[in-house]
Amino acid sequence: MLKKAAEEALNKPSPYGIDLRIEDFLKPRASSSMGLEALSSIGIDPESASYIQVDNRPVEVRPSIPGVKVLTLSQALEEGLVQDYFWNAVKVDTDKYTAAAELFGGHEGYVFIAERGRKVEQPVLSCLLLSTPGSLQAPHNIVIVEEGAELHVITGCLTSAEAPGLHAGISEFYVKEGGRLTFTMIHQWAPTSHVRPRTGVIVERGGEYVSHYINMSPIASLQTDPKVYLVGEGAKAYLSSVIVAPRESKMDVGGSVFLRAENTSAEIVSKVITKDRADVITRSLISAEGRGARGHIECDGLLLSDSSRILTLPALDAKIDDVQLSHEAAVGRLSEEQLYYLMTKGFSEEEAKSILVRGFMEVKIEGLPRPVEAQLKMALELAARGL
Amino acid sequence: MLKKAAEEALNKPSPYGIDLRIEDFLKPRASSSMGLEALSSIGIDPESASYIQVDNRPVEVRPSIPGVKVLTLSQALEEGLVQDYFWNAVKVDTDKYTAAAELFGGHEGYVFIAERGRKVEQPVLSCLLLSTPGSLQAPHNIVIVEEGAELHVITGCLTSAEAPGLHAGISEFYVKEGGRLTFTMIHQWAPTSHVRPRTGVIVERGGEYVSHYINMSPIASLQTDPKVYLVGEGAKAYLSSVIVAPRESKMDVGGSVFLRAENTSAEIVSKVITKDRADVITRSLISAEGRGARGHIECDGLLLSDSSRILTLPALDAKIDDVQLSHEAAVGRLSEEQLYYLMTKGFSEEEAKSILVRGFMEVKIEGLPRPVEAQLKMALELAARGL
Repeated sequence: MLKKAAEEALNKPSPYGIDLRIEDFLKPRASSSMGLEALSSIGIDPESASYIQVDNRPVEVRPSIPGVKVLTLSQALEEGLVQDYFWNAVKVDTDKYTAAAELFGGHEGYVFIAERGRKVEQPVLSCLLLSTPGSLQAPHNIVIVEEGAELHVITGCLTSAEAPGLHAGISEFYVKEGGRLTFTMIHQWAPTSHVRPRTGVIVERGGEYVSHYINMSPIASLQTDPKVYLVGEGAKAYLSSVIVAPRESKMDVGGSVFLRAENTSAEIVSKVITKDRADVITRSLISAEGRGARGHIECDGLLLSDSSRILTLPALDAKIDDVQLSHEAAVGRLSEEQLYYLMTKGFSEEEAKSILVRGFMEVKIEGLPRPVEAQLKMALELAARGL
Repeated sequence: MLKKAAEEALNKPSPYGIDLRIEDFLKPRASSSMGLEALSSIGIDPESASYIQVDNRPVEVRPSIPGVKVLTLSQALEEGLVQDYFWNAVKVDTDKYTAAAELFGGHEGYVFIAERGRKVEQPVLSCLLLSTPGSLQAPHNIVIVEEGAELHVITGCLTSAEAPGLHAGISEFYVKEGGRLTFTMIHQWAPTSHVRPRTGVIVERGGEYVSHYINMSPIASLQTDPKVYLVGEGAKAYLSSVIVAPRESKMDVGGSVFLRAENTSAEIVSKVITKDRADVITRSLISAEGRGARGHIECDGLLLSDSSRILTLPALDAKIDDVQLSHEAAVGRLSEEQLYYLMTKGFSEEEAKSILVRGFMEVKIEGLPRPVEAQLKMALELAARGL
């Protein structure tokens, strides 16, 4: 069934983003050579990771955090732990990238399950490295936060500069009643990489999903639009993205939240910085059909070069009257007045710019446990340094 | 050339809105029977109109306003006055509706030309009535505001309830250096009408285009997205729409402004009220590629029924760094607190609702000469009464 659906979708392009030929990524050009120490460039110590995958092969699985099951996908499937979750929040025939993940991705990825009622303070780290030039990496990850549990996942994805390829990571997240999942993803690909993550999140009654997405580096093309379904009363979502797009980067990034139950709420915040000749499109959607639903979208774009471009496309969809949706956006360059003001206070132009850019990149990170907050701040700091 | 391009585009659907078969509107079902007195329902006195067209036939042409040439399109083409303007701001092969207008529309419509340097205070009224059931009405209108001139055009479009059909009005507006055109359009179609206006506006250096669009009545389907090109330094555009969508109305309404020259600026404001089972999509785009360009989009939606829907899709496209674009949107129902507050002040619930709805519908109408402002206020008042 899955295989047939995937085969039929293998030529189905994504509605957005540059279309790629899957065949081009099925003939890897050389064997892997990337060292795990590269992880430090995104602020991750490989020794502390619970899960490390290189290309399509898990190389470290450390189930050492109390309250969290850590497995590879193949183990979890074998043990019958994820049958109901496998291709349930993301459809296998969404497009050619989901199809390719199923057919050629190797059926690996991380599975994290937070035990019922457990508030796991320590973040679970996972690392995905694309190492073999010209290859397809398609981890299939599943995270389950059982009733009343709390989990923090930090994922770092990266490629060595010499190893362009296609990353099509499938992530399916399930937050049960009263649960809370915080997911922080830090991307650092090569300027020749193509990245097509496909993420689906289902949040039940009173549950909460918080996501922070950070992209720090130039990339050939990125297209992502995680979909969050709030299906239980009072469920909440907060999605923030900080995108730094230098060089020739082409990024089409989004986030959609579907408020399907009463008193659900969502906030989508994106900050985009472009440099050089980067071209970034940000899409966001809040669709509301639950009574008392509330949603807010905020998009801010900062162009640091004359030949870069930012197109921001937010959407508010009210399907019944008893909802409240709002949106704010601002796109432009650094404020001359603010720059001037800082310079009159004794800062150099360079310093003043840096202060304003860092201020621009600030996102709400309240409610995170200290180690996650520290990780996030470090990632933002590293991203700022690239400017 | 035009004919060939039109023939080739005759099956080209619009990217948005419900697709129609042109053939279905080429076999009118009976002869015209609509009286001009129907115009009073949209606040227009037919005696004061400079141009009245019923179906595809001009029935009144009164060139009595000093400083403005008033002609039919066929006259203007014959006199060689609009050769450079005909299908220049709107392309004949935009889609099947522009193609159908060229091939089957009868080559009629109004042509208004404001003489160089003339500030015409008195508004020029035009009326377009769709009278023959099941027919295609496709007026092709051209307005030229010569250098330094100022003109106000008010257009009322309506159909009798018994005469559904397809209206595909082509409007091409040219505002020359330092000129100013204010265009107020009031639509009142039948619940069975399909409406596909196609409008293009070219504004030169220091020129200004102000548009007010009001749709007051149920409609089978409406799809419109006027495109305004600011091609001269310092040109400005202000577009406001007030859409009241009752019953089964399906509307896909938009507005796009292209800031192509230095220090151009634009504001797009839309207010949408839905009732019953109406479904409204509002699109707006500000695309900026001129240094120092400034743009702002504001979309407000008010749902007065549980089973209606509003989808708002604004877009900001910054193509260079030295631009400043912003956007705000809010969609929801009437504020309970405000209603309650007014009721504590002695208003009935009905009155309180009416006050808040009228407040919601307010748009900036500054800078209009008194007769235009009065006309606009009357139209808004009539629209509010329908609620």
